[in-house]
Amino acid sequence: MKHSRVTARAHTNIALIKYWGKRDTTLFLPMNSSLSLTLDEFYTDTTVSFIDGDQDVFFLNGVEQPLEECVKISKFIELFRTQSSIKSAVLVESHNHVPTAAGLASSASAFAALGTALNELFVLRMDKQTLSTFVRQGSGSATRSIYGGFVEWQMGIETDGSDSYAIKVDDADWNIAMLTIPVNTRKKEISSREGMKLTVETSPFYPAWVEQAGQDIKAIKQAINNQDFIALGELTEANGMKMHGTMLGANPPFSYWEPLTVKVLQRIREIRGQGIPCYYTMDAGPNVKVICQADKADEIKKLLDQSFPDNTTIISGVGKDAYLLSVE
Amino acid sequence: MKHSRVTARAHTNIALIKYWGKRDTTLFLPMNSSLSLTLDEFYTDTTVSFIDGDQDVFFLNGVEQPLEECVKISKFIELFRTQSSIKSAVLVESHNHVPTAAGLASSASAFAALGTALNELFVLRMDKQTLSTFVRQGSGSATRSIYGGFVEWQMGIETDGSDSYAIKVDDADWNIAMLTIPVNTRKKEISSREGMKLTVETSPFYPAWVEQAGQDIKAIKQAINNQDFIALGELTEANGMKMHGTMLGANPPFSYWEPLTVKVLQRIREIRGQGIPCYYTMDAGPNVKVICQADKADEIKKLLDQSFPDNTTIISGVGKDAYLLSVE
Repeated sequence: MKHSRVTARAHTNIALIKYWGKRDTTLFLPMNSSLSLTLDEFYTDTTVSFIDGDQDVFFLNGVEQPLEECVKISKFIELFRTQSSIKSAVLVESHNHVPTAAGLASSASAFAALGTALNELFVLRMDKQTLSTFVRQGSGSATRSIYGGFVEWQMGIETDGSDSYAIKVDDADWNIAMLTIPVNTRKKEISSREGMKLTVETSPFYPAWVEQAGQDIKAIKQAINNQDFIALGELTEANGMKMHGTMLGANPPFSYWEPLTVKVLQRIREIRGQGIPCYYTMDAGPNVKVICQADKADEIKKLLDQSFPDNTTIISGVGKDAYLLSVE
Repeated sequence: MKHSRVTARAHTNIALIKYWGKRDTTLFLPMNSSLSLTLDEFYTDTTVSFIDGDQDVFFLNGVEQPLEECVKISKFIELFRTQSSIKSAVLVESHNHVPTAAGLASSASAFAALGTALNELFVLRMDKQTLSTFVRQGSGSATRSIYGGFVEWQMGIETDGSDSYAIKVDDADWNIAMLTIPVNTRKKEISSREGMKLTVETSPFYPAWVEQAGQDIKAIKQAINNQDFIALGELTEANGMKMHGTMLGANPPFSYWEPLTVKVLQRIREIRGQGIPCYYTMDAGPNVKVICQADKADEIKKLLDQSFPDNTTIISGVGKDAYLLSVE
């Protein structure tokens, strides 16, 4: 049955074992497997519907997007359209519930929501695993946003990317939460994509990163299996810092750290020193995320807000799988 | 002829290609060769004389030092005493002209000055290269303070350390200066020695560091030979950041950076962006050193002092070989 209007929701995710480096820049195939936590606080709702004409149209937060953005989205829609007998143009209306102030990338939830909606609109009936290989081609980290809880994006080995997909590792329903401390939400001087490329091409630490990430994935899945929060936290912190270490090895070296980043990291180590388990991670940017036990999140937020009143910490619980909100 | 009182001076040095990791912790044998610039602004003057009794005595800046420090110095004196027919105890009176506010380690100039004085007091007549293998056993970086200008500490391959010595690479008399911006001069949470050890033992980046340092040494000697300041600066900055990158790879990860460190690094990149060549390096601590052209040093200091009025930048020219100030 052909629908006229489908709305889907997908949550963003934060990698605990980072995706850092591509082996194929067109298919978004990664150099290493990664593992993330899906966050319920930040998500994208996307409605897709068929329209007349031969041009896809893209509205983000109610604003029609410029040609460049539409081309990117249209290319992504084409992945689904070629699988379907329906060849209509699509109107995409997307709403990001990822506050700019959180300094989080919205591309993971955006492509996961769009893919989930398109899968239904084009009546493709792909399972989630297959769908994750499609959304991967919009944004690498979107692969993981198909599922909730702890999610692994298995790097795969095939050149066509068919085995580079997400799997759910665990529901993360054992007292897990994540805090986000926005440090700087301005546009970055070096995009993640550029930073990744420079690191892969020039950092002598990169081969060791890839090897270590493989070991870290195994160890963190064991920690999740044991519901061992301390091991989970230590592995998260060590892996994130390793990723930032590869950047200092690049030529020329670069860093996403701001003065306030260092202050926040110091403060989190202090709080941990006071006996409250909490561990930081950072993506390719200056903002800090902290994994903690859900029943300690309020207390940690309070301490951080006291220290950084201008950078309000946001608490998030665990998000669930991407899903359809409505189908008409 | 036996002297009764010898005074020597040695200057401190800042590594442009860093010494980071030991292959022998007793003999202070390094995992990689390093290359430094000797600084005329910071030095140690040390007077040694024979005394009655069987205990060496150590005064630093006019204050008799506690037993623990005396034991360390006495062990160092013993290296020279065992080479000599004279077996007397020694009084060491050392004066550091390395302002605490500069946040620089004084062990390099201290052991180089003490070794230079002891070589004369015990009438050992070692040449400078041999002397550098002796002072190495007090502090690794002291090896390089035997010479002025650009100095290479060749790592050597022998297990007895006999080929792990300093050689002069260049007088650095081509418009070279170094600025020191003190960020924090408190005692570090993790000493250089501990940081080095943790990195060697746990950082997956360490093998790549060693290999890269070998390549960086070759490249910087070429830059020095060509008097190519830009290449010298770029290699210096990249090598220092690589060293700090290895620490983020350690388990647990650690960093010597303070919030102000990041601000200073950002400011230096800005100044460079304005067309004034200057490149930073950092040892195992939060303070920043900047290599620049001597005729630009005042201008850069002025800009840095405007930005960081509480952290006055210190300009230093190029220091010369360790030498005898007086022999009685």
